[in-house]
Amino acid sequence: MIVSEMTVIMGVDPGSACTGYGIVKTDGIAVTYVASGVIELAAKTARYQKLCEIHRGIGEVIREHHPAHFAIEEVFYSRNAKSTLTLGEARGAAILAASLCGLPVYEYSAREVKQSVTGNGAAHKSQVSFMLTKLLHLEAAPDAPDESDALAVAVCHAFKNREWSAV
Amino acid sequence: MIVSEMTVIMGVDPGSACTGYGIVKTDGIAVTYVASGVIELAAKTARYQKLCEIHRGIGEVIREHHPAHFAIEEVFYSRNAKSTLTLGEARGAAILAASLCGLPVYEYSAREVKQSVTGNGAAHKSQVSFMLTKLLHLEAAPDAPDESDALAVAVCHAFKNREWSAV
Repeated sequence: MIVSEMTVIMGVDPGSACTGYGIVKTDGIAVTYVASGVIELAAKTARYQKLCEIHRGIGEVIREHHPAHFAIEEVFYSRNAKSTLTLGEARGAAILAASLCGLPVYEYSAREVKQSVTGNGAAHKSQVSFMLTKLLHLEAAPDAPDESDALAVAVCHAFKNREWSAV
Repeated sequence: MIVSEMTVIMGVDPGSACTGYGIVKTDGIAVTYVASGVIELAAKTARYQKLCEIHRGIGEVIREHHPAHFAIEEVFYSRNAKSTLTLGEARGAAILAASLCGLPVYEYSAREVKQSVTGNGAAHKSQVSFMLTKLLHLEAAPDAPDESDALAVAVCHAFKNREWSAV
């Protein structure tokens, strides 16, 4: 992939309680922070309604920032089949919002994301958050863990782009 | 819930390889077959593309038949976390198609569906298929298992409606 001028990248960390998003842009060399936040879902909201809210929320961010790529963390989550299914539904709603807008979707393992952002594939979440603050010149670490994870996957994709564009 | 005149019900059995749908209508007493089929997804289609196809396919059936209710089987699927997550994504895409059209979503356990259609919550799939043929006056059993499962959950919801409307 050749990165031309500024490429806007959206990273998303979907969840049924809170879905984080992070937007960065890159010229193939530097990576710059654009925006980040969370789509919070009230615990009492019906599961079906939550899917609509995730889908609409992601859609709004896409329409505001016009990302060219959509990045998401691969999940291997086996604590409980019911939670895995619910997480899958939230991921489906988020991915669909991107796919229906024609955005290509990229997936990275947690290890790849951590390796990209901190140089250590087994880094702790706090180290990821700390390095994001440095790399993106943020005044403070992202508030929510989901926001931090979403920014991390966006930065990981930007770094991968940098590698690709150098090929 | 009071069933007025004819209520059209859509049942769906989502899957990442094949998503079945079944449409029935009920006046609160009789349940009549309207349509059924499958949205087949080529194995080589990208996972993200499959979500779009499920979403679009379900959306087309909704626009054609205007169901008032959307019914889906509850899943407790724990063979493998990766498959559960993928199934969750497919379910998310299907449920979202209904939710975004404003359709209320109802879930029934496999046991409830089998109990409704055959009188035995532990019935074999072939018995469900056989009973659907009788109940809906079909010339032959539905071709695909996913189509049969989708019709079964639609019929289950119709029978539940009958119970509710009698209250």
